[in-house]
Amino acid sequence: MQSSTEYSARRERLEASFAEWKVDALLITALPNVRYLCGFTGSNGTLLVTPRETTLFTDPRYTFQSAEECDCRVAITKNHLLPAVVAGVKRKKLKRLGVERERMTFLAYDFLREKLPLGTEMVPLTAAVETLRMVKSADEIAKIRRSVQTNSKAFDAALQRLKVGMTENDLAAELDFQMRRHGAEGCAFETIVASGARSALPHARPSQNRIQADQLLLIDMGATQDGYASDMTRTVFVGLPRAEWKRRYRAVLAAQLAAIAAIRAGVAASKPDLEARKVLATHGLEKEFTHSTGHGLGLEIHEQPRIGKKEKTILQAGMAITVEPGIYLRDKGGIRIEDTVVVTETGCEILTPTTKDLTVF
Amino acid sequence: MQSSTEYSARRERLEASFAEWKVDALLITALPNVRYLCGFTGSNGTLLVTPRETTLFTDPRYTFQSAEECDCRVAITKNHLLPAVVAGVKRKKLKRLGVERERMTFLAYDFLREKLPLGTEMVPLTAAVETLRMVKSADEIAKIRRSVQTNSKAFDAALQRLKVGMTENDLAAELDFQMRRHGAEGCAFETIVASGARSALPHARPSQNRIQADQLLLIDMGATQDGYASDMTRTVFVGLPRAEWKRRYRAVLAAQLAAIAAIRAGVAASKPDLEARKVLATHGLEKEFTHSTGHGLGLEIHEQPRIGKKEKTILQAGMAITVEPGIYLRDKGGIRIEDTVVVTETGCEILTPTTKDLTVF
Repeated sequence: MQSSTEYSARRERLEASFAEWKVDALLITALPNVRYLCGFTGSNGTLLVTPRETTLFTDPRYTFQSAEECDCRVAITKNHLLPAVVAGVKRKKLKRLGVERERMTFLAYDFLREKLPLGTEMVPLTAAVETLRMVKSADEIAKIRRSVQTNSKAFDAALQRLKVGMTENDLAAELDFQMRRHGAEGCAFETIVASGARSALPHARPSQNRIQADQLLLIDMGATQDGYASDMTRTVFVGLPRAEWKRRYRAVLAAQLAAIAAIRAGVAASKPDLEARKVLATHGLEKEFTHSTGHGLGLEIHEQPRIGKKEKTILQAGMAITVEPGIYLRDKGGIRIEDTVVVTETGCEILTPTTKDLTVF
Repeated sequence: MQSSTEYSARRERLEASFAEWKVDALLITALPNVRYLCGFTGSNGTLLVTPRETTLFTDPRYTFQSAEECDCRVAITKNHLLPAVVAGVKRKKLKRLGVERERMTFLAYDFLREKLPLGTEMVPLTAAVETLRMVKSADEIAKIRRSVQTNSKAFDAALQRLKVGMTENDLAAELDFQMRRHGAEGCAFETIVASGARSALPHARPSQNRIQADQLLLIDMGATQDGYASDMTRTVFVGLPRAEWKRRYRAVLAAQLAAIAAIRAGVAASKPDLEARKVLATHGLEKEFTHSTGHGLGLEIHEQPRIGKKEKTILQAGMAITVEPGIYLRDKGGIRIEDTVVVTETGCEILTPTTKDLTVF
């Protein structure tokens, strides 16, 4: 658990922008943002941040837990949270309430529009907390590092039990079990295990298909540990790969290394993506790379910045991002290679310890 | 996988309300609703339903998968989905576009408000698809039943390995692993394992606390199988329970059975909740029951109807709901007992096979 100083420091950094945003309070409805700002890990909570006082609104299931976790005032309410929030806004005589444009539901917007007192205005803000969250503190990087290490240990332990004839589901269950055994509280997303031609589906769910000899095997997995996500993809060969697949593997690996080499503070987030595409183009594979190169991660598995062609964000030291080019050949197979890295002033640190050598089982 | 007939039949049931809602199309942005209406299981998709044609908008990661899964037209778009949706609305000359009030983000609302052609209006609808989803088809009930059975098998298998001294995390990992081993694709929510006084936290996360002798042990777990959720809580005793805890266990069990006895088609969803509270009141425990009695479940772990004091929905045959009264004594411990049941014309069928006898390990 972070010290209460870290949470209150985050709220102070947020409040430093209140004048620029022309707001006197912020209503935080997205749970990862609530957790980031006060430590609350429950499934129902809304945070009202004002420079004088921060209040978490939650329900009686979390009476004891919120008292343990949070460094701010807690208001327990038996029914929906928003009426209590409106009462708080009235009592505090707030006039301009910043709200989360991408996170608030239309329902909440509609309710507040109707119920907020006359003279109180909502100010939709874009990525107010998400922008803060892009650059991780030393404590957060330590947590992401542990999550990445757990994830890689689980990969190693599970792959030791890989046998021809086991189903994709069996291997996925083993991977998830090993994550927990090595310290994760769970998976950051549904583990992908795709064998043979199914590896051409970038987001394949594990199936009852049996893993067979002389096939590709694509595994995309991530742990959540102490709230923080990791993300790794490896494509391995079960039995001896054909020469054409070896060539394609080397092309994707070269693209991934080129993307990594392009990362450092001060560079646009589009740069690593463009570098990966250039390498794949020299192998005639650029059309098979159908997604973007990566994404930020932290309390959520997908955070800002996106590492894609059109992304204008400038990389900063302390950003944690994935680098994951891939190619997908319909009905044949796919290859993706993904690490989690942290941007530094001079380049990046690759957190993922798992080998990227072409591995044959 | 359901037959395409089932998906198109669901869309037809939805379209039957278009006249009442005064809309000529519906924009579905909530993923479980998208899945319900066309079969798509990916993580990025929006569905435009018109009486003439239904279109799924998704991105290139899902090109192959959507072709396999969906029985409707698919439009692949490289960037954000909403601009493609707007183009579709223009091309089809739609005038009144129903949108999901509780599910659409303010961002999407704001974008559409600005970009939809003059003369096209958004009509926010409340729980349009969720209301349909409340009553399950025979096929859906079969899937929920399998998910419940898998969940109970996993409980039995994991509890066989329960040992004094193991951590809550270890037991949670074992429970999750056994769910996968028995056929689940994953957990429907983060498994709760809370021992001793931690069982007083209704939504406790498993911790590194060791399970000790002569303590309560509360386990709340659910599987997702073929997309459908199950949900079960059991509170067991490790070592011999004190007489006061035996009394409390019997009180909660009596409350749970009273709630179940109150369930049948035609009864208000508040009735089981009130019956459970009455029983707890006779034991002086009504104030310790701090949440509602249950909730619907299906493609999501929390669906309509809520089984709570103020709920006005009338129960219908085919609704799948949980029944889960509990009591929580701060710093002492908590007891919750939960089954998944299906409402019938004359009562309900309890799907959960696991015993509710006071169990001592």
